[in-house]
Amino acid sequence: MDKIENTIAGIQPLDEKAMREAKIRQDSLTKPQCSLGQLESLSIQVAGIKGNPRSRIVHKVIFTLVGDHGVTEEGVSAYPSEVTPQMVYNFLRGGAGINVLARYIGARVVVADLGVSAILQRNPDLKDKKVAMGTRNMAKGPAMSREEAIRSIEAGIELLEEELPRGIDILGTGDMGIGNTTPSSAITAALTGGDVATVTGKGTGLDDEGWRRKVKGIQRALEINRPDPNDSIDVLSKVGGFEIGGIAGIILAGAKYRIPVVIDGFISGAGALIATSLSPQVKPYLIASHQSAEQGHKIILQHLGLKPLLNLDLRLGEGTGAALGIFLVEASIRLLNEMATFAEAGVAEKI
Amino acid sequence: MDKIENTIAGIQPLDEKAMREAKIRQDSLTKPQCSLGQLESLSIQVAGIKGNPRSRIVHKVIFTLVGDHGVTEEGVSAYPSEVTPQMVYNFLRGGAGINVLARYIGARVVVADLGVSAILQRNPDLKDKKVAMGTRNMAKGPAMSREEAIRSIEAGIELLEEELPRGIDILGTGDMGIGNTTPSSAITAALTGGDVATVTGKGTGLDDEGWRRKVKGIQRALEINRPDPNDSIDVLSKVGGFEIGGIAGIILAGAKYRIPVVIDGFISGAGALIATSLSPQVKPYLIASHQSAEQGHKIILQHLGLKPLLNLDLRLGEGTGAALGIFLVEASIRLLNEMATFAEAGVAEKI
Repeated sequence: MDKIENTIAGIQPLDEKAMREAKIRQDSLTKPQCSLGQLESLSIQVAGIKGNPRSRIVHKVIFTLVGDHGVTEEGVSAYPSEVTPQMVYNFLRGGAGINVLARYIGARVVVADLGVSAILQRNPDLKDKKVAMGTRNMAKGPAMSREEAIRSIEAGIELLEEELPRGIDILGTGDMGIGNTTPSSAITAALTGGDVATVTGKGTGLDDEGWRRKVKGIQRALEINRPDPNDSIDVLSKVGGFEIGGIAGIILAGAKYRIPVVIDGFISGAGALIATSLSPQVKPYLIASHQSAEQGHKIILQHLGLKPLLNLDLRLGEGTGAALGIFLVEASIRLLNEMATFAEAGVAEKI
Repeated sequence: MDKIENTIAGIQPLDEKAMREAKIRQDSLTKPQCSLGQLESLSIQVAGIKGNPRSRIVHKVIFTLVGDHGVTEEGVSAYPSEVTPQMVYNFLRGGAGINVLARYIGARVVVADLGVSAILQRNPDLKDKKVAMGTRNMAKGPAMSREEAIRSIEAGIELLEEELPRGIDILGTGDMGIGNTTPSSAITAALTGGDVATVTGKGTGLDDEGWRRKVKGIQRALEINRPDPNDSIDVLSKVGGFEIGGIAGIILAGAKYRIPVVIDGFISGAGALIATSLSPQVKPYLIASHQSAEQGHKIILQHLGLKPLLNLDLRLGEGTGAALGIFLVEASIRLLNEMATFAEAGVAEKI
């Protein structure tokens, strides 16, 4: 728990001076003021995060964290759990959606096993942070122990710190794990007070009957485990997942090291709920890349007060939405840095 | 007029076979079906446009067309008309927003003078398609003659055809011209039947009084000129602009040459209204990059049945939103081409 507390203690507010300077520069660029909309506010937010009004984005990292979920035995997913390790190998071979988008935007992907329920082949590109062989079935008892919940968050912090020497100018969160919209819905219900049916979607493609089964499973998990909404580690341990805890850790550490944190969709949103309830100081470091097609995600974004950059009906996870979001953040920084000012270009200002 | 008619006659429907093949491939990729949302439908649309289920995007072109507007003498803009030529030089020096974004996505920018009300210095990178020294004040009579309207559309077709030898795998439309939200609102009112106050925004930053002046100017222009909504060349000549006609020409030619046409914001939307009313066959070739903060744009997109990819409160024009849209289209094509299939990756399919 020391690692988590130390990380939280290191999180500072954004740098107001850098933000003011970035805003002054935005208003001097050859365009009507505010005509670049959210791209302007993004560039100012990044200035505040980095404490630098003219930062650059070179090293981009997407963390794709993987875990399995005991609750799949309740029939809450359209895919079998074997897909989780199979997708890990797909990530390592570069064939998944996140690999394609990361190559496209020039980001590196860090793939980490937080709790896959299979022994994975060793691979130099796979980070082993396995907390356990998948969570237990939360519909029958706690998904994990409190110690395991803490360990998963610490693993996320470690993952980020281990990558720091290679450079991280911006990071995206990502996830993979068959069944992981179920704990994400449960966390959302527990921490936002949302109704289970409202925060539960069809995941990777359940039919109506499957969806009802999923809602019932989540309701049962919340009744049996009674997670304490004022203790997000309790929520994580009762109805969470290892990759979700890991994402929370990455978010906390990103904020500590003043790195813009671009969160992906619903599962990353659940991780952000855990992180922000551990430390509300994290919020200004967050950038919501997109609004997922998964219905509970909207409730998370509203709860966090985040406006998503994209709304493309994505629901793949892996960090795919975050990759697109990173592209937009970098666009905002390049505009701030590279556009000519009115004075430089000899353009007349507003009448 | 022959050039316009020949162009329209050359526009074919999308290739259904290529779209079916792209859809089959999408459904074989290692992700839940449809989990990439609009990125999947985009890739299928592009397959239909290009007649190729595995196309590539290498050559990206943004056409930034520039013109001046006599109606500025009614006080409808927050900036003086001198800014139009000043911004042309800014484009040519690479200091404008569109230059930054085009460099970022690897696109070339074609800057063309369709009707700037100043004699511009010659520059090898500036295409001279000047129809006239700006339009006339539409609040007092037609903005241009019918011949000039036709000439502006033809100029757009020429611009695209002159670029074809250098390669165009995708194109974005863009505009610059002080005052040009005014003719765009007038065109929108004339061709969609929308109420003038509803389709008129504050452009580059009018105050409330300026906005009322603008609405009155547009109402007067529509009353005096009585543009015929069934004759979009009449609409263009009465209340349009040269760069708007040029954009309509580029859109028509893009469709003829089976190039995905990524339209920018409000002014490009007005060009798209002209183009689609000349030839409804154009519609499936259009991709709406974003929804502008300019309020009339929403009405255009609804009228055209287009769902914008982005909604970032942009209102700069120049093709900036189109550049971001091109990035997303290319992302969709790379995902379609580069992701592994279930069979290739040895991943189990849906239960």
